[in-house]
Amino acid sequence: MPVERFSENPLIRPSDVAPSRPDFEVACAFNCGAIRVGEEVVLLLRVAERPKAVPADRVVAPIFDDEVGGRLKLLSVRRDDPDFRAIDSRLFTYQGRTYLTSISHLRLARSRDGRRFAIEPKPALEAATPDEAFGVEDPRISFIDGRYWVNYTAVSDRGISTALAVTDDFHTFERRGLIFAPENRDVTVFPAKIGGRYAALHRPAPSVLGGRDIWLAYSPDLMHWGDHRLVCRRRAGQWDALRIGGGAVPVRTEAGWLAIYHGADASERYCLGALLLDLQDPSKVLARSAAPLMAPEAAEERQGFFGNVVFTAGAVTDGDELIIYYGASDEYMCAARVGIREVLDGLGPA
Amino acid sequence: MPVERFSENPLIRPSDVAPSRPDFEVACAFNCGAIRVGEEVVLLLRVAERPKAVPADRVVAPIFDDEVGGRLKLLSVRRDDPDFRAIDSRLFTYQGRTYLTSISHLRLARSRDGRRFAIEPKPALEAATPDEAFGVEDPRISFIDGRYWVNYTAVSDRGISTALAVTDDFHTFERRGLIFAPENRDVTVFPAKIGGRYAALHRPAPSVLGGRDIWLAYSPDLMHWGDHRLVCRRRAGQWDALRIGGGAVPVRTEAGWLAIYHGADASERYCLGALLLDLQDPSKVLARSAAPLMAPEAAEERQGFFGNVVFTAGAVTDGDELIIYYGASDEYMCAARVGIREVLDGLGPA
Repeated sequence: MPVERFSENPLIRPSDVAPSRPDFEVACAFNCGAIRVGEEVVLLLRVAERPKAVPADRVVAPIFDDEVGGRLKLLSVRRDDPDFRAIDSRLFTYQGRTYLTSISHLRLARSRDGRRFAIEPKPALEAATPDEAFGVEDPRISFIDGRYWVNYTAVSDRGISTALAVTDDFHTFERRGLIFAPENRDVTVFPAKIGGRYAALHRPAPSVLGGRDIWLAYSPDLMHWGDHRLVCRRRAGQWDALRIGGGAVPVRTEAGWLAIYHGADASERYCLGALLLDLQDPSKVLARSAAPLMAPEAAEERQGFFGNVVFTAGAVTDGDELIIYYGASDEYMCAARVGIREVLDGLGPA
Repeated sequence: MPVERFSENPLIRPSDVAPSRPDFEVACAFNCGAIRVGEEVVLLLRVAERPKAVPADRVVAPIFDDEVGGRLKLLSVRRDDPDFRAIDSRLFTYQGRTYLTSISHLRLARSRDGRRFAIEPKPALEAATPDEAFGVEDPRISFIDGRYWVNYTAVSDRGISTALAVTDDFHTFERRGLIFAPENRDVTVFPAKIGGRYAALHRPAPSVLGGRDIWLAYSPDLMHWGDHRLVCRRRAGQWDALRIGGGAVPVRTEAGWLAIYHGADASERYCLGALLLDLQDPSKVLARSAAPLMAPEAAEERQGFFGNVVFTAGAVTDGDELIIYYGASDEYMCAARVGIREVLDGLGPA
């Protein structure tokens, strides 16, 4: 599959992003939502920050705290505390509860050429409710009925859920609350109504039966979702065996809705693939990538905050091509272009 | 708390229920939805069946199979198979997948006195879709806009989700699809609109952060749900420490919505308690049972298919009293009466 990575990759590094406060550093700038606005490509970056100068024998979780007037609380734990347990670079548990080592906000970046981005100095949207106490992550942007609808992952000790906000200018956001209850992320809202209703892919994470598969839901108003239908499942032994989830907002083609999705294999390697969904009934998969469209190959895709990851939350079209903006190793922002026709021609059976 | 158990308990035993096919036996008749219809109390029982005459060295999972014309497939596994692992009386895994040892359907039972029930000989609603392949469970009945809305747990290897059906006569049911994606159960739909929208308690089961807590959602049409809000959480060290979930459909009182819920403690003992929710904003808990309203005490509540369980999915009012229909030990159907005023007076802080 002739996916052409941008020669400028990574387009955005953490060091390109100003921290939101002087005592924080930007650890990661990745997993952006993306959309064309006039002559520009607009990204909403996920920016993960952590306190600077944490002693090597400690780990700190930054937590939004409604009870102290909406400021961040810093939970500092000694690594040799018997109640501390490291999970990976992103997570730890303390006294039986799970915490994050960083807190994410959304940051606006704009570009005329889609390659060189001007990054705003302040957050566009940051944790502001108890459901967002551990941060806001992985936005997707859908342009619907003349407004920009941004859904994002709201993370807290209540669970990982999906929230909705709407904006006209990417500076002022109106929060609309949680649209998918825990655990649910990787929500992509289709840019048009289907059969009279809005539609979205979503990715529940059940604990007893089932697994991290892709589902579809419908909505009369973008706020209330139901009529859930399974779209597709993980495939044992393949590149998308462990978990899958929607990526970029689906693109309408004559053949069907083209949805770029991510899949992780048993070794937690994240690749990108594509689904072709029926135009009238997008719960029907018409075709699917047998091999990954993109696998972690470049240096920044293989090594970083959480290595061996390519992950997308946004793509834009450029004529007959798709420009996929993707996070690399949960740390950098990269892009690649691919012909839509070539993606479709490369798909295998559903 | 003066809860008075019916002297006739258990009101319904598995042996009172005719199996749906000659080669099956009824293992459990429990966790009914309940509602008054005219002069009658109507129950939708959860009836769990399994094949008769399974050899002691085997375990069988009955599975609805869409691909063989909607008949049941019987997955028979030797207990000494290296790929077999017993979990508890309800569940096992085979080749890494989880299965149920029985399959549930919903069965109608009617009574004039609320104590002696005539049980229909055939299922009212049984597994009929891939989302229901492992059965339909734990119905709740809400009378809204002149119709009976039945939500129930749809179980399959896709996950544990909540489905909606509507009926006028409890014989013909119109399926409306899944209203809550996996994992979600213990859904109770309020019997009236609140602030112009329908409302429901629900119980997600996230896998990474959060836990089995009670949430609220709103809907414009009973089919699409959103604006999710956390209602209340488990309480460490108490009778509702491990998991909680909505029980009977909430009852409107002058003080607020009275919702009977279940809680399990660390030893998997299931008790019933009560929540008082704000009439205008039912995500606000005004008061809550400090001690259980009911704990497993009677013989049938302590010993059975899954012992030490009292669990409700339905209650009806009788003047100033509430008659709680509850499953005992996941095997029997029982009832108890309690004064609504006395429940309210016995509540502790939220």
